[in-house]
Amino acid sequence: MWERERWMERVRSQMPGERWAHTEGVMSCSVELARRFGADPEKAEMAALLHDYAKYWPIERQRAVIAEHGLGVDLLDYDPPLWHAPVAAWVAEREFGVTDPDVLNAIRYHTSGRERMSVLEKVVCLADYIEPGRRFPGVERIRELALNDLERALVAGFDSTISFLLEKGGTIYPLTVMARNGLIREIAVRGNQSEHPNLGNGG
Amino acid sequence: MWERERWMERVRSQMPGERWAHTEGVMSCSVELARRFGADPEKAEMAALLHDYAKYWPIERQRAVIAEHGLGVDLLDYDPPLWHAPVAAWVAEREFGVTDPDVLNAIRYHTSGRERMSVLEKVVCLADYIEPGRRFPGVERIRELALNDLERALVAGFDSTISFLLEKGGTIYPLTVMARNGLIREIAVRGNQSEHPNLGNGG
Repeated sequence: MWERERWMERVRSQMPGERWAHTEGVMSCSVELARRFGADPEKAEMAALLHDYAKYWPIERQRAVIAEHGLGVDLLDYDPPLWHAPVAAWVAEREFGVTDPDVLNAIRYHTSGRERMSVLEKVVCLADYIEPGRRFPGVERIRELALNDLERALVAGFDSTISFLLEKGGTIYPLTVMARNGLIREIAVRGNQSEHPNLGNGG
Repeated sequence: MWERERWMERVRSQMPGERWAHTEGVMSCSVELARRFGADPEKAEMAALLHDYAKYWPIERQRAVIAEHGLGVDLLDYDPPLWHAPVAAWVAEREFGVTDPDVLNAIRYHTSGRERMSVLEKVVCLADYIEPGRRFPGVERIRELALNDLERALVAGFDSTISFLLEKGGTIYPLTVMARNGLIREIAVRGNQSEHPNLGNGG
């Protein structure tokens, strides 16, 4: 049951104004990217609405939900900014009654990415990098790539995250590296196919 | 049975002159780092001597050894330059009769690193980055760090590898990221301990 306006009010109550503006940006950007790359725009909007639901929960509350419900305990060895994503997926399922696994995964992996991402997962993850309010070095190039190449744009997004962590000496969540590796392989397969038009899906 | 001079001849016969010069550089550098950071210099020299034994084997022969003997089959999804390390460890055990697990692991993980590296593993891996013949952007900074901080020097080495792969759009082997994460955590624990001298091992 997707009660868009009521859900928006519930989400808005969980976060400061600028984060709500970011959420609205991710919603509109996800819808646009979904239309462009062939995901369901309504699912994209729903996942985007809920993606940061737990972002402002106290960090110990986020830790407790992950630990109690076994939401990828390895995550607790990594930076706390990664934790809100699986917590939001858990809230989406328990409190909003979302059952669609693709929507739940798009929420769960919106920060880290993962291997073998669906189109919907890629769309929400990329929208979180490039919604209109985002400002960081390289964001313009990612926006340009997003005009016609979902996978290359998302690789560029993960590149910016990994570069940032290299520079500040932070640990890197291995799943993000695996997500990037998976996208690079998808791009290579696509490239090989385009050289053999008989295999279809060329270009 | 460590017959240094005969082993050196056997290794030398497997590679072109400049790679043998690199091997000699890694040997002397490993001995120096082992003395500096408290690993066994003889084991370090043995691991360094054998580390690139399979570097010039045809890539299909390397692939076959990894596949037939189950030497980390996931590696075959990654760049071939990673493959010679486990193959060399296998040769060290089968053909040279090396039984010391620390020496074998120092050979096996000299390119990728891994989580929870021993001092010997760190020494050989770092020597491979900084032996006197190496020239790449940032190597001087790694050499400076290696004068008194094994872990920070090796983090800087892995940083250079990961940056290189980001720039060229290559896949990144997740174990290298996990190795770097492990070192960063070791450095953090060390730092915390030095603030609490009663816990020992301070500074």
